[in-house]
Amino acid sequence: MAPRIKTSERIVQNSLELFNQQGERSISTNHIAAHMEISPGNLYYHFPNKQAIIAVLFSEYESLVDSFLRPPQGRAATVEDKRFYLQELLAAMWRYRFLHRDLEHLLDSDPDLAARYRRFSQRCLIYGTHIYAGFVEAGILCMDKVQIESLTLNAWIILTSWVRFLCTTRENSNHLSEQAIKRGVYQVLVLEAGFVTDQARDAVNALYEEFYVPLAQALEDVQHDSRLS
Amino acid sequence: MAPRIKTSERIVQNSLELFNQQGERSISTNHIAAHMEISPGNLYYHFPNKQAIIAVLFSEYESLVDSFLRPPQGRAATVEDKRFYLQELLAAMWRYRFLHRDLEHLLDSDPDLAARYRRFSQRCLIYGTHIYAGFVEAGILCMDKVQIESLTLNAWIILTSWVRFLCTTRENSNHLSEQAIKRGVYQVLVLEAGFVTDQARDAVNALYEEFYVPLAQALEDVQHDSRLS
Repeated sequence: MAPRIKTSERIVQNSLELFNQQGERSISTNHIAAHMEISPGNLYYHFPNKQAIIAVLFSEYESLVDSFLRPPQGRAATVEDKRFYLQELLAAMWRYRFLHRDLEHLLDSDPDLAARYRRFSQRCLIYGTHIYAGFVEAGILCMDKVQIESLTLNAWIILTSWVRFLCTTRENSNHLSEQAIKRGVYQVLVLEAGFVTDQARDAVNALYEEFYVPLAQALEDVQHDSRLS
Repeated sequence: MAPRIKTSERIVQNSLELFNQQGERSISTNHIAAHMEISPGNLYYHFPNKQAIIAVLFSEYESLVDSFLRPPQGRAATVEDKRFYLQELLAAMWRYRFLHRDLEHLLDSDPDLAARYRRFSQRCLIYGTHIYAGFVEAGILCMDKVQIESLTLNAWIILTSWVRFLCTTRENSNHLSEQAIKRGVYQVLVLEAGFVTDQARDAVNALYEEFYVPLAQALEDVQHDSRLS
């Protein structure tokens, strides 16, 4: 059985690579098979259709996010935790960037995936709220309950919409760099800028510097004269 | 010529109504003709295809936004201006909500529209930056240039992604209430919460109360036990 499992994993990893490079919509199961130099029949032996491959990739993404989007257990949150969340979010968004680019289309064509995504997003919003509440308890942020709820919602929307924003705003929307995604993580970090306490300000300012990417670099394919000025 | 112009306008307005109610993807030119009790041939006399109708609706939306998204001329900005922008944004988002729901799909199927949208979004980002800079000059907000740029970007992303967020997070994604969109405008307002100056705080707090919609109401189709808590 071992080789069969390996082919199925290879299909998933090759699909991820192709989806990220060219967009999920441009890639058919035939493209994936040709890229791997296997027959379409071999691919269909493992996956009935492209949706089944996407479902596996979404599960991977979901497990990855679930693995780090948790408040620290048994101790107060620190600014170092903030760095950890930002780094993990950047890595997850970068690794599964095709999901962020084509999400709406993917959910439209698969009601099961749409239902799973709804549960995933509700879970992320709840854990996000707990994480922000932990930063408030630790004296790093100063916010009330309504502000935490609004901030979590905005963070979720920016994180899940950033790649699409890049794709609808830039001329050459297919090319996505890790730097461009990093700016999206910075955009989430600045959501809290007005709520940082004096005691945490220096440490959080260091994070701003670490994650800052000039907008011109994030939007590198937009012509110079049409950049934000 | 008068009746002909009227039919063409009626087609555009009926299309807007149907797109908003049922989503652009569920509505064909045949649906529009049947709804208006005209022949498909009569509709095609005015518009070669659905894309041409959408292009007119996008132009209307673009003109509407361009008409109010401007810094006040010859005077300092006031908190009343802020209320005006929020009200106008709410009205525009509500009136053309199908554009926000199906944007990615609409742009994918029409490269000309995609190019116009890129110019539109770049223009909005530039005017948005100027508007926020005006609030800083007027002593209503306290931010530096990088913060203004980040805030404008986040405001744009929240405004253009809110309807899609509702649609991917709620069970019954077709039903959109004006209250649900109002919460999106509130989400944009709270982006500045940490930057409001002491002198403007009371007036801005009144805006928070005016635009606040409980999340449970915005997400009214999501089951109670899975709401943010």
